[in-house]
Amino acid sequence: MQALRERILQEGKNLGGGILKVDGFINHQVDPALMDLCGAEFARIFSDIGATKILTAEISGIAPALMTGQHMCLPVVYARKNKPITMPDQVYLTLAPSHTKGRMVELIISPEYLAGGERVLIIDDFLASGATIAGLVRLAEAAGARVIGIGTLIEKSFEGGRTLLAPLNLPIRSLVCISGMENGQIQFGE
Amino acid sequence: MQALRERILQEGKNLGGGILKVDGFINHQVDPALMDLCGAEFARIFSDIGATKILTAEISGIAPALMTGQHMCLPVVYARKNKPITMPDQVYLTLAPSHTKGRMVELIISPEYLAGGERVLIIDDFLASGATIAGLVRLAEAAGARVIGIGTLIEKSFEGGRTLLAPLNLPIRSLVCISGMENGQIQFGE
Repeated sequence: MQALRERILQEGKNLGGGILKVDGFINHQVDPALMDLCGAEFARIFSDIGATKILTAEISGIAPALMTGQHMCLPVVYARKNKPITMPDQVYLTLAPSHTKGRMVELIISPEYLAGGERVLIIDDFLASGATIAGLVRLAEAAGARVIGIGTLIEKSFEGGRTLLAPLNLPIRSLVCISGMENGQIQFGE
Repeated sequence: MQALRERILQEGKNLGGGILKVDGFINHQVDPALMDLCGAEFARIFSDIGATKILTAEISGIAPALMTGQHMCLPVVYARKNKPITMPDQVYLTLAPSHTKGRMVELIISPEYLAGGERVLIIDDFLASGATIAGLVRLAEAAGARVIGIGTLIEKSFEGGRTLLAPLNLPIRSLVCISGMENGQIQFGE
């Protein structure tokens, strides 16, 4: 998507080690208008898959998922990384490695908000190793729900997430693809 | 606000100990359309205060803050509770007690996204003890920014947040006020 690609070119920073800093418009400061455009684009891409719910992971997935949910008139569930006291004792829980934290984190969903038979569209900020999204897929499957599509703002195609998720045989769409970050550059792919 | 009040009546749960569970439309599953209505209402209330930035705290503040930012055409900054590796070494950091976690949590903002001279509107999900919002105010002041208004979805007026924040002499507006939660009830106030 042109608007997101241009913003990455203007403000994205290659911090080395495959880390793309987009804290100025996605991960710390958020540009609501840009997120709204991205949500509209996901809604267009996934208009005919019959989703009944959007699923994401806190924290950075919330903004694009919320805007997608608004455009698709669907509720958004975000997997929590800590179990709040408002959640029942019995939950769906899985572990996923966090790229930016350097350790395993929990992903937790209450059975109250993800039921058998739901058709789930996963939306997240990054598709990197695919580990977080694979965790969300496991949670959906544990709930008896069916994941029917995956959308991410930015794919780092050199980190293998698409290969990891390929056996799921699902449509995976990223609004911007980054094919390489060698030598301080940000290379865009298809 | 009528729509939010009705939703609390329909789906909110009094878990005792002053804990109001709104996980079905704010804190775990989010209703984007309701959050959009709330954002529009905050934009109406605070239309003439000349805000330049919306400030909130992860995680549950993000949805209402994002929608408010969209309606007011303003960027949204969410204070992080863990410092990601994309953040510079030098940050604004304060501690605030977490009601739902039962311990102190850090609130962290990068100086890159909150500058001196900014006029900050704080948006959050709950006004309870006021401790998180007081923490956000401290961060804004540390950055040399000026907080010019505070908006929350739900105020629990019996927990004293408004009294704690009163010395700031700022407009504090809540879309719904809950005046008591005794005996399993949810009592609404003005």
